[in-house]
Amino acid sequence: MTGGKSPNAVWHRASVTRRRREEQNGHRGLILWFTGLSGSGKSTLAHAVEEELHRRGCRTFVFDGDNVRHGLCGDLGFSDEDRAENIRRIGQMAKLFVEAGVVALTAFISPFRADRRRVRGMADHAEDFIEVFCDCPLEVCEQRDVKGHYRRARKGEIRDFTGISSPYETPENAELTVRTGEHDIEHCVQQVLQLLESRGAVKSPR
Amino acid sequence: MTGGKSPNAVWHRASVTRRRREEQNGHRGLILWFTGLSGSGKSTLAHAVEEELHRRGCRTFVFDGDNVRHGLCGDLGFSDEDRAENIRRIGQMAKLFVEAGVVALTAFISPFRADRRRVRGMADHAEDFIEVFCDCPLEVCEQRDVKGHYRRARKGEIRDFTGISSPYETPENAELTVRTGEHDIEHCVQQVLQLLESRGAVKSPR
Repeated sequence: MTGGKSPNAVWHRASVTRRRREEQNGHRGLILWFTGLSGSGKSTLAHAVEEELHRRGCRTFVFDGDNVRHGLCGDLGFSDEDRAENIRRIGQMAKLFVEAGVVALTAFISPFRADRRRVRGMADHAEDFIEVFCDCPLEVCEQRDVKGHYRRARKGEIRDFTGISSPYETPENAELTVRTGEHDIEHCVQQVLQLLESRGAVKSPR
Repeated sequence: MTGGKSPNAVWHRASVTRRRREEQNGHRGLILWFTGLSGSGKSTLAHAVEEELHRRGCRTFVFDGDNVRHGLCGDLGFSDEDRAENIRRIGQMAKLFVEAGVVALTAFISPFRADRRRVRGMADHAEDFIEVFCDCPLEVCEQRDVKGHYRRARKGEIRDFTGISSPYETPENAELTVRTGEHDIEHCVQQVLQLLESRGAVKSPR
């Protein structure tokens, strides 16, 4: 047919489905939604889990402030409304990655239950969404204070800072809780991987 | 280290880079930006190109009205401002797919040069963005009128309809022009694939 001219030919619509992509990849597409205080290790853990999944041949992508705040959500500020819209867009984007057969890992404080419930509700299937609570005492997060945000929040230089001047609503039905203040990163990574294996989402390493 | 407790251990930051993902996938991440009138075959062509790429083992994803308008851009209408924001978000999202090592195919009329220039400018590298102009005469698009939009636009039931009551700004420097009104779909698919091969973005079929 190449080179032919047939303006009236039916342009048949092909469709690469999620299922076909998952077969190609050898694992399921899903969202690992890490939530927890600033400094609780969400982003670091997400990247470490990604590293392990990548070594196993999985397709992965981590969303965090670095690649979202200046791009897709560059027009948003930190009002309650903008924070909710921020989480909504991240959820919708992660959903498209799931459709693409990718393990999407998101690392945002996402302190409000209502917002997390909303993104959970966007998923096509319940098993597409795994909430991972990075449970780390405020004292430990504040002691680490890698970015100096807690010090500035205590001084009142940052308003509505989660844990200091704005609440963090502890997850009530997270699929997994990892104690990032007590355990080392390898331990936490293994907890996440074991959950994924037990659900048949990814294969055990050979 | 598994099971150890070391709250003060350094949580080393792992990083799966775009380069590593592209090596894993065996092809480059990039955006194929299809632009053209309603009914010019953008979405059909994008899906057909995706099908061929998928058969060759590439990682792909098509963005079109179906998966974007009700999700990520569900809050946007059709004002000039909202249309521009729509295109901006699609561009930012596609950029993240490129970072994930995926061939992102977008199928939107995107009638304005300024909007297309803006999304092109978002790309980290010039070769990440390939504009494909689906060049099909208005008469042919209107005759096809698969969705009945042209008929309604002529009656004035749809305002600001591209080609009827709103301009389509023909691309001046598209990387590729495919004559979707003259050639059959196989021919157009091959044109796109040959461009990708000639740029070393994907391998030729074995």
